[in-house]
Amino acid sequence: MARIVMKFGGTSMAGTERIRTVAGLVKREVEAGNEVAVVVSAMAGETDRLVNFCREAAPDSDGTEYDVVVATGEQVTAGLLALCLQGMGCPARSWLGWQLPIGTTGRHARARIGEIDTDALTAAMAGGSVAVIPGFQGMMDTGRVATLGRGGSDTSAVAVAAAIHADRCDIYTDVDGVYTTDPRIVARARKLDYVTYEEMLELASVGAKVLQTRSVGLAMKMGVRIQVLTSFVEYGMAPTRGTMIVGESEIEDLKMERHIITGIAPDKNEALVMLIDIPERAGNVADIFGPLSEAHINVDMIVQTPTRGDDLIDLMFTVPQADLAQAIALVEAAKDKIGYDRMTHNTHVAKVSIVGVGMKSHAGVATTMFDALAARGIEILAIATSEIKISVLIEEDYTELAVRVLHTAYGLDAEVEGADS
Amino acid sequence: MARIVMKFGGTSMAGTERIRTVAGLVKREVEAGNEVAVVVSAMAGETDRLVNFCREAAPDSDGTEYDVVVATGEQVTAGLLALCLQGMGCPARSWLGWQLPIGTTGRHARARIGEIDTDALTAAMAGGSVAVIPGFQGMMDTGRVATLGRGGSDTSAVAVAAAIHADRCDIYTDVDGVYTTDPRIVARARKLDYVTYEEMLELASVGAKVLQTRSVGLAMKMGVRIQVLTSFVEYGMAPTRGTMIVGESEIEDLKMERHIITGIAPDKNEALVMLIDIPERAGNVADIFGPLSEAHINVDMIVQTPTRGDDLIDLMFTVPQADLAQAIALVEAAKDKIGYDRMTHNTHVAKVSIVGVGMKSHAGVATTMFDALAARGIEILAIATSEIKISVLIEEDYTELAVRVLHTAYGLDAEVEGADS
Repeated sequence: MARIVMKFGGTSMAGTERIRTVAGLVKREVEAGNEVAVVVSAMAGETDRLVNFCREAAPDSDGTEYDVVVATGEQVTAGLLALCLQGMGCPARSWLGWQLPIGTTGRHARARIGEIDTDALTAAMAGGSVAVIPGFQGMMDTGRVATLGRGGSDTSAVAVAAAIHADRCDIYTDVDGVYTTDPRIVARARKLDYVTYEEMLELASVGAKVLQTRSVGLAMKMGVRIQVLTSFVEYGMAPTRGTMIVGESEIEDLKMERHIITGIAPDKNEALVMLIDIPERAGNVADIFGPLSEAHINVDMIVQTPTRGDDLIDLMFTVPQADLAQAIALVEAAKDKIGYDRMTHNTHVAKVSIVGVGMKSHAGVATTMFDALAARGIEILAIATSEIKISVLIEEDYTELAVRVLHTAYGLDAEVEGADS
Repeated sequence: MARIVMKFGGTSMAGTERIRTVAGLVKREVEAGNEVAVVVSAMAGETDRLVNFCREAAPDSDGTEYDVVVATGEQVTAGLLALCLQGMGCPARSWLGWQLPIGTTGRHARARIGEIDTDALTAAMAGGSVAVIPGFQGMMDTGRVATLGRGGSDTSAVAVAAAIHADRCDIYTDVDGVYTTDPRIVARARKLDYVTYEEMLELASVGAKVLQTRSVGLAMKMGVRIQVLTSFVEYGMAPTRGTMIVGESEIEDLKMERHIITGIAPDKNEALVMLIDIPERAGNVADIFGPLSEAHINVDMIVQTPTRGDDLIDLMFTVPQADLAQAIALVEAAKDKIGYDRMTHNTHVAKVSIVGVGMKSHAGVATTMFDALAARGIEILAIATSEIKISVLIEEDYTELAVRVLHTAYGLDAEVEGADS
């Protein structure tokens, strides 16, 4: 017998027919002898509908009443799933955020989960009742309803799993796991059996479709084992095995043969800013990046050219495309101080990252990357590295080619039946 | 300064544009120096949508999870109205059923309001904040969300008004008051300035579109003064005076000239059942009506023909059309016991009622009715009377004619400008 948390997203809860399928998956786990808590999202599209109502009613609010409105989406699906389960003869009840309660802190509409009172919950689960919990919400110590910000249901699920010491947190979604890269780019992308928390965080641009980053960070901190798997199975059928997201030590214990590189993540949301002919002077770089940092603009890659003997340097850096206009304005405002000659920018760039815990212990990982890209004539505009990631900035047009080339270079291509590989 | 409760129905809350109009009406009352609590319904159509979800999920449930789902409709509008008010610079907050709490008793999905804790509410109102309360819901002493059954928001408003000793409970709807009769039948129907609780209850078939019967009964019991008025005014404009529903003594104190008859109510929802040739025997009537009563079928009018010398009588009675099939089955099941010869029924009948507190002190009210109908050749199939109501059963085709004839006979026709009246 295990104690598990199952989490279902908006597409899994979109309408009573889909919710019945979900109830079937829950019932399977109960019949296998498990204690089950389920965390649900609102029906797909419902939160958008409610958010729009709020914006129409009053665009600027402190979030307290916004939370009252948008928290209803998950309340509806929690009640409906409990109804479906009861209708199948499976004891169940909904536990609203204020009923447990799930304590929250911070600001309304972007609250953080605090203490979760689990006494009633675990007692009910031990009594054989499925606990259905609306995700994305909790209660402030003022007694007001609070929500966690968009995508918060994954975080709710991980927090509940941590609080009740669940053996596993199964996050059901519309994909069947985490892949080595986007299967729309590389047909031979492979579903991963295991990924470490750290890798999952670095693969965010691939993983964003699968899991909210915040929930992965929380799972890593609390040691919650996550499985990502699909809820799109025929009614009554078992789901196929998904991807486990766990700590590095658990994977080491399995003594599995792992690839050096776990996944390849393309990201087309960066923009490149170039400052030409900056006088080489102490404090110049601080004058550039200080204002960006104050404006919470996340500068990712930075490349400074060496001086060419004329005491002038060039500087290039990337920012999220959404922040480009603001970044340019901030740098222009400091032009006299910095003393650069001219600024250009380029949104037709892409960042391609290779991620893998294995690269810590392997030399030559970067060389393989640079060689593979050079062989196809793909120019590298900038490079950034972390312990388990190497990112290169390239021209946007080459993104898919670069991902495919690297996928093959690191031996990630799935074997295709009946084909040489 | 007065303390008032304002209640807005589903058509008044249908979309943010309408909710903004409602907020304007609330703000007017606040700026006039009043303490205001607002009770809101869900957006028109929303409760139906939620009820359908529940039926699809599990047709037979004990109502606990159904309540979790359907209570969200009013939570959404309560939050949105509070948001709108805040956006207009009018302090406001929503108070959900579990936050006050509004205690409920009885069964889920058809709960009754019990104790309402008003300490936090009145403190907030005294502090200048508008209290926005979702109607139709409360909390059981199990801590579970409960709803009052369809149309329960009027009852919520009256209960809140009673609990906070409000000077008035203004119920805003899509009509501008209570009329002497249905204006679609009689063009010269008049809006009433005052109606007693008892008259309002008897005028239910006219009033059904306006007020839930249960709320009128509660208002009578608790002495809550109700005003029915329309929320369909241009933004920023004052609403026109509606109809006050109050106790008889308040109307007497006004020393107004009142008509003997207050209103005329047609009702096409009754069906007539006739039992022919029943042996005249003690206990026979009990054998007929006992089973109907046990099945909660409301028998309204009963007429027994005198014996014709052959010790056989005929009996006719009316039941709601919705219950006709069940009523027939129950009587047929008791046929041997009752010993009647044959049973017929007729759904093409209508009940027309004249209602007025004034008839208590005036003789000849019934005669005027019978004479007026006879003059138009309208046959009376049955008669039933109460202290302030006389009902006649007639052929359905004559309904509108009968209502017009009686409206004129009792002097209720409005004066039309430029016309002789």
